Amino acid sequence: MSTPNQMKGVLLTGFGGFDKLEYREDLPVPTPAAGEVLIKVGACGMNNTDLWTREGAYGNAIDDQEQSGWSGGEFQFPRIQGADIVGEIVAVGVGVAEARMGERVMVNPTLYAGAGKIGLYAASFIGSECDGGFAEFATVPATNALVIESDLSDAELATFMISYLTAEHMLNRGRVSRDDWVLVTGSSGGVGSALIQLSKRRGAHVIAVVGQGKEQQVMSIGADSVIQRGANIRAGLSALGRETVDVAADVVGGSQAAELIDVLRPGGRFVIAGAIAGHTTEIDWRKVYLKHLDILGLTMGMMQEARDLIRYITSAEIRPLLARTYPLSAIVEAQKFFLEKRFFGKLALIP
Amino acid sequence: MSTPNQMKGVLLTGFGGFDKLEYREDLPVPTPAAGEVLIKVGACGMNNTDLWTREGAYGNAIDDQEQSGWSGGEFQFPRIQGADIVGEIVAVGVGVAEARMGERVMVNPTLYAGAGKIGLYAASFIGSECDGGFAEFATVPATNALVIESDLSDAELATFMISYLTAEHMLNRGRVSRDDWVLVTGSSGGVGSALIQLSKRRGAHVIAVVGQGKEQQVMSIGADSVIQRGANIRAGLSALGRETVDVAADVVGGSQAAELIDVLRPGGRFVIAGAIAGHTTEIDWRKVYLKHLDILGLTMGMMQEARDLIRYITSAEIRPLLARTYPLSAIVEAQKFFLEKRFFGKLALIP
Repeated sequence: MSTPNQMKGVLLTGFGGFDKLEYREDLPVPTPAAGEVLIKVGACGMNNTDLWTREGAYGNAIDDQEQSGWSGGEFQFPRIQGADIVGEIVAVGVGVAEARMGERVMVNPTLYAGAGKIGLYAASFIGSECDGGFAEFATVPATNALVIESDLSDAELATFMISYLTAEHMLNRGRVSRDDWVLVTGSSGGVGSALIQLSKRRGAHVIAVVGQGKEQQVMSIGADSVIQRGANIRAGLSALGRETVDVAADVVGGSQAAELIDVLRPGGRFVIAGAIAGHTTEIDWRKVYLKHLDILGLTMGMMQEARDLIRYITSAEIRPLLARTYPLSAIVEAQKFFLEKRFFGKLALIP
Repeated sequence: MSTPNQMKGVLLTGFGGFDKLEYREDLPVPTPAAGEVLIKVGACGMNNTDLWTREGAYGNAIDDQEQSGWSGGEFQFPRIQGADIVGEIVAVGVGVAEARMGERVMVNPTLYAGAGKIGLYAASFIGSECDGGFAEFATVPATNALVIESDLSDAELATFMISYLTAEHMLNRGRVSRDDWVLVTGSSGGVGSALIQLSKRRGAHVIAVVGQGKEQQVMSIGADSVIQRGANIRAGLSALGRETVDVAADVVGGSQAAELIDVLRPGGRFVIAGAIAGHTTEIDWRKVYLKHLDILGLTMGMMQEARDLIRYITSAEIRPLLARTYPLSAIVEAQKFFLEKRFFGKLALIP
């Protein structure tokens, strides 16, 4: 097939509000460089990181920069965001096997800076440091385009990568194994619902902290029991007949994080990959050292974990939670709905 | 040799001030139970934990108890404290080889509650949950009495176990290896000076945070450079030509802990085993998750680490830092001097 010269897409023109998102129908279709593939985007999932990057909210985190993108590095405008890309390879760059043309792929948006964990620490991200999938076409390194065979729709597949890669890395960092008790926060969100499904896949028990009215939804994807958001965590556990948990997997932060640390057993692990309710928490070190705790931070995960996810999807060990799709031109409407948090699972944009 | 019926020793009669320490010369000499040995104490080191236990300062840490001992469990009075016991085995209980009589031993005061790390998490401690070495004689489980061959004096040997066991476990938890840059706080104290020596033993580089006037002392035991206590940590590092460190090993806590987390490299480890400057610190989670940090708490260490220490002492890879000795009858004077922190290394009591 031949690709057009122009495409629809959304440009982020600067850090700021919704007005920084510019829907266009005259963007140049990118050409795959050596080692890259061109993907015709079927769907692109929406994530917190898209909004945080737009707002420049990662600033101040590492080097007291005022505003920055995900990796904390320099950010260039205009930028096409969108990291959870699903689609079909329609062209390949020099050095990529022609045989990959026509492959249906999911993209791991993590551009590793080298081998091993060091490569993750210094990674940059598709949709942040280079253009992503909020467009009809996107180029990505061939190694980041992972072939997938599945009956699921592109929009359904676009719910997985970022949330589940982060969640799987959280569970690996937290050494979650069969019969562990895992407390999951933000459990109706992308990473939260991924944590539930991926914990259950390992044979762990899951207690989900969730907003009122979403209890049945998180039970339906495997949570063994729930604590209502805003309730005292220790009291909530007591009501379930438990005093402690082995692992708390948190994306919420704020004052609740201290409560989660309180209810960890000696040798327990607190794993955090985001802090949507508050960037800071006052920690009591006596709990940390007398209980021999691990407090472990991370963002995204390793390529092997991305490959593991593809396997879990193919074998239907995890299932997509697609709340709603929007056409790409309705990105602002989609982000406003995203911010209301009245849905369960994920949103995807269709170009 | 025959043991007397009565001995000198110090009873802790309740949680509180110096008046809770009662020096006596009419205490019954304990009899070793099955599996135990009786040690004629040559010297017993003094540690923060002795004072914290006296004050009941471990309370509130785990279960919001008002006052408690080291393990957080029930505490019985009167109690003979003292955990860093060095001496000679003069009697053995049923099931212990007679051949151990006459052995010179150092005691690992950790009474493991089982195998592996779980056994450490639920451990109790000699000198806290059972009587220790602030007396002429003490009984301990035979497995906790580790034979030592050394030219060092009993008082010198009594400087090692608690501080170095804690420090070695910190370095193991923090995965410190050759060429790592390690930032050590409280570096003129027991654990701090142990961290310096044990880090250097591994071939790591050490930057020591130390009070004014003690710079030369910490350099003399291996610190590569120093940052003065109270100085801004980032500025102090900059002055040394560095931006980040691989591991921060902390026993100080308080607001400085946040500065230590700031200067960790991505993938860095913050290891904490005490918080003498303040129990709480406000943590910015963005630094923790965007930098993939580990924050690791612990108290004491594993039996294998205690055996490793014996080997390091025997081979003179670490050396004792004995600031002063006191007779057991002068324990209050010794504790007052201890609190002034005007010395370098450790204090020991001689019964």
